Amino acid sequence: MKIGKATIPESAICASDDETIVVRGADLCKELIGRLSFTDYFWLLVTGQRPSTSASRVLDATLVAIAEHGLVPSVQASRMTLAAAPDAIQGAVAAGILGCGSVILGASETAGRLFLRVDALAQSRSLSIEEAAAEVVRELRASQQPIPGYGHPLHKARDPRVARLFEVAAEAGTPGRFIAIAEGVEQVLPAITGRELRLNVSAAIPAVLLDVGFPAEALKGVPILARTAGLIGHLTEELARPIGFALSYQAAREQRYTGALPAGVTLKKAE
Amino acid sequence: MKIGKATIPESAICASDDETIVVRGADLCKELIGRLSFTDYFWLLVTGQRPSTSASRVLDATLVAIAEHGLVPSVQASRMTLAAAPDAIQGAVAAGILGCGSVILGASETAGRLFLRVDALAQSRSLSIEEAAAEVVRELRASQQPIPGYGHPLHKARDPRVARLFEVAAEAGTPGRFIAIAEGVEQVLPAITGRELRLNVSAAIPAVLLDVGFPAEALKGVPILARTAGLIGHLTEELARPIGFALSYQAAREQRYTGALPAGVTLKKAE
Amino acid sequence: MKIGKATIPESAICASDDETIVVRGADLCKELIGRLSFTDYFWLLVTGQRPSTSASRVLDATLVAIAEHGLVPSVQASRMTLAAAPDAIQGAVAAGILGCGSVILGASETAGRLFLRVDALAQSRSLSIEEAAAEVVRELRASQQPIPGYGHPLHKARDPRVARLFEVAAEAGTPGRFIAIAEGVEQVLPAITGRELRLNVSAAIPAVLLDVGFPAEALKGVPILARTAGLIGHLTEELARPIGFALSYQAAREQRYTGALPAGVTLKKAE
Amino acid sequence: MKIGKATIPESAICASDDETIVVRGADLCKELIGRLSFTDYFWLLVTGQRPSTSASRVLDATLVAIAEHGLVPSVQASRMTLAAAPDAIQGAVAAGILGCGSVILGASETAGRLFLRVDALAQSRSLSIEEAAAEVVRELRASQQPIPGYGHPLHKARDPRVARLFEVAAEAGTPGRFIAIAEGVEQVLPAITGRELRLNVSAAIPAVLLDVGFPAEALKGVPILARTAGLIGHLTEELARPIGFALSYQAAREQRYTGALPAGVTLKKAE
Repeated sequence: MKIGKATIPESAICASDDETIVVRGADLCKELIGRLSFTDYFWLLVTGQRPSTSASRVLDATLVAIAEHGLVPSVQASRMTLAAAPDAIQGAVAAGILGCGSVILGASETAGRLFLRVDALAQSRSLSIEEAAAEVVRELRASQQPIPGYGHPLHKARDPRVARLFEVAAEAGTPGRFIAIAEGVEQVLPAITGRELRLNVSAAIPAVLLDVGFPAEALKGVPILARTAGLIGHLTEELARPIGFALSYQAAREQRYTGALPAGVTLKKAE
Repeated sequence: MKIGKATIPESAICASDDETIVVRGADLCKELIGRLSFTDYFWLLVTGQRPSTSASRVLDATLVAIAEHGLVPSVQASRMTLAAAPDAIQGAVAAGILGCGSVILGASETAGRLFLRVDALAQSRSLSIEEAAAEVVRELRASQQPIPGYGHPLHKARDPRVARLFEVAAEAGTPGRFIAIAEGVEQVLPAITGRELRLNVSAAIPAVLLDVGFPAEALKGVPILARTAGLIGHLTEELARPIGFALSYQAAREQRYTGALPAGVTLKKAE
Repeated sequence: MKIGKATIPESAICASDDETIVVRGADLCKELIGRLSFTDYFWLLVTGQRPSTSASRVLDATLVAIAEHGLVPSVQASRMTLAAAPDAIQGAVAAGILGCGSVILGASETAGRLFLRVDALAQSRSLSIEEAAAEVVRELRASQQPIPGYGHPLHKARDPRVARLFEVAAEAGTPGRFIAIAEGVEQVLPAITGRELRLNVSAAIPAVLLDVGFPAEALKGVPILARTAGLIGHLTEELARPIGFALSYQAAREQRYTGALPAGVTLKKAE
Repeated sequence: MKIGKATIPESAICASDDETIVVRGADLCKELIGRLSFTDYFWLLVTGQRPSTSASRVLDATLVAIAEHGLVPSVQASRMTLAAAPDAIQGAVAAGILGCGSVILGASETAGRLFLRVDALAQSRSLSIEEAAAEVVRELRASQQPIPGYGHPLHKARDPRVARLFEVAAEAGTPGRFIAIAEGVEQVLPAITGRELRLNVSAAIPAVLLDVGFPAEALKGVPILARTAGLIGHLTEELARPIGFALSYQAAREQRYTGALPAGVTLKKAE
């Protein structure tokens, strides 16, 4: 079935014959393996260019910052899945990645788009960052859209990863424009929303990455790649010391059934 | 429902409060972000220890070696999935990872287990690598099991990534025991199987990683993490220049229906 | 970590002890197994109520209509995934389901929401269906949103499943309000869009289901459940007569590499 | 890349042109939609044949029996995934299906293979069912393999669904050979294993399905299809009354960190 018009698949990423594998214009064996880090290779795969030293350092920092935060929902889902299907690690990783959605890890991308919008508005109308941030935030509020990347269920003061990522970015000599925008949004939020919502890691990641030229379209890939590393750590532990079913037992221990019972039926309380 | 005996979930990977995140015994913000590479962090997450310089170099090389090889089946599945569900990148990544199974990328783990078996046999019975390799390969053949990590549909001579990975391992000063075992198996294969099956990248990866102490249980995680990077590269391209439906169109273009038709029905040939 | 306010999981679907399983207020063993069809059970699970005879008939018809349409992208992704990971059928099914997104099968839900909007507008402003349909379609066009459920890559005239589903609904004695709305939209489309877009199966499904009271929020579940049946059919065939790698071979056969080559490198053309 | 020899994808399931869709030799619109139940269509898709009345009744009963059992691990994983990624229901369904593995729902298939082995042994060596069952169970024990389909974490006496499925099978007039085999295995288990392991639903399902000719290769598809219906019920509830994060909060409430802390760091206890 022909869906859409294109029928010839074109790609600029990789070509090979039996002796040579070319990736993004370079000979994989001669120029890449053993010569650049996995982080730099990720940048090359996504953008087609090698990263600057600053960009490489900042991308490494964001991947380390977001890879692991304990038994979060996606890790629980992944470990339960491995407990039920221990032969298919790829399935457990996939189950964990499927929880990288708009509410949890996807905010990296939506916060990035918010910052780009503030930037574009400030430039096109010669506004200060604060003015532009206030206008964009007010528009989001008016259309009842959330402000992605601010507030955290655990880290009520600023998420500690935020300051560290901004520090790394400063050390790496990035321009800092998008950090200023992220902080500008943070500054205008209390007056507009009535709540002290502080920057979280999902806003810090696009702030530092946009400053080194990482493409906005690929921002969601950063937490996905990072979490894959975290998931593999957890699944290796799960194989050795399983807790998938213990998590599930605890999760449902206090559950309440709010539906009806058939006439005459009483259920024993689970121990 | 209580499945198994354990009910308290224990994990040695991460703990946190509102100010501090501890991962594998280190303060994430003070000791890890901006101080170690994502590759080294992956090693730390999986093993609980920081890698040696050799280990770090070898792990980087394997991740770069296996991340990308063009429009392979899992990449096709992933790009078709994004074409059909463009809002959910995590779903397209998951679909691609689900193709990291026993036939394609899972061979890294099974080849690793084969090498460990040869090693254990050689040590316990004081055999040479070739003798032990021959015995293990014969046993696998006798029980009609495949020899994972040898032969490649495209790279009929030795996969070019193999030599490069072995070179990097040598430069990094690894002991080379498992490389010798991998080559020992390659050497005995023709006489036993009657086929010239050369080492492919899925055997080279465990060979160099076992030599630097990477745990066998986590070997499957290496191609999964690496391919996630490759998939994100492809999905970023797919968002900009979609080919998911073109791949699908081509895939089915020469399909043949081998079932029956209802009486009197003739189907027009698709253009 | 506490995300949101609720901490006690409540559900009205199922409760059990060691002797009795209660689902939606009924004793699973005494009242449901062997006493109602899987289709009726699906309705009960989703809505908490048993379906009327009409509803049951219409739901069965929609599930049969959408379960199978040959080697579509999601089936290809699923069969390629099984070829690569043959031990994990659940992974191959999951890969196929991940392709039930907004572009392909998700239109059932979005078309349903379009019809509800037309209905609400017609009622609140006492408009005819055509007037309300025209207004809603113009609004969608103005905000550059697609009209879900109209047009089909293969069935340029009306998708043959549409007429049959409407026929079954008429036989089942449904009110037909949402069928009239679906046809109302079809009628106003050419004048507004300049294109002859005919109703496809993804519009016919919500039209007949909304008429029997199926909840709009669960509409996307219908193609997902139906396709799962189709995928299991394909995966059973794949285990017996594999074509996953043949599909992949064909998909990439005419691929073009549009990136650069390293200086001095020429790749042999694949046979 | 050409993996394997076949290059032309062949399938006997579906063919179509712009006017007609043929599935398994029948005209989808004229012969199937509105004329057979979804359960019968599932049988047709998988086997290429229409089911007998007995087969249809038994398949319906197994699908109803296994679709729903409350907040089991795969449902928890699915609801947590939807909470994190609410826009992608297909992703949450996929996450739930990925938990249909060898430990939890996959036992339907492995128990089926066990029964076929007992049957083949009894026939080839003219043994009684008990003799053959004892021999096969002893072999499994000797090679330290589990006996799939016996024992249940909640239903310590026989799972109540077992008796009901056997009753439905009897009412449907099935031969009962595989029910006798399943009970034969149950009978010999205590003497061989020293444990009172009673038949659970995952053994009852293949017992009744093999008796009506359902193919062993597709057995795992039955719990997968059934659970998809259950998952859609839960996800519809999750959209209306979310508990995904409450489940996750409970799951981790009693977690213990067994790793080290950096010198001088004490973490506050989570509330």
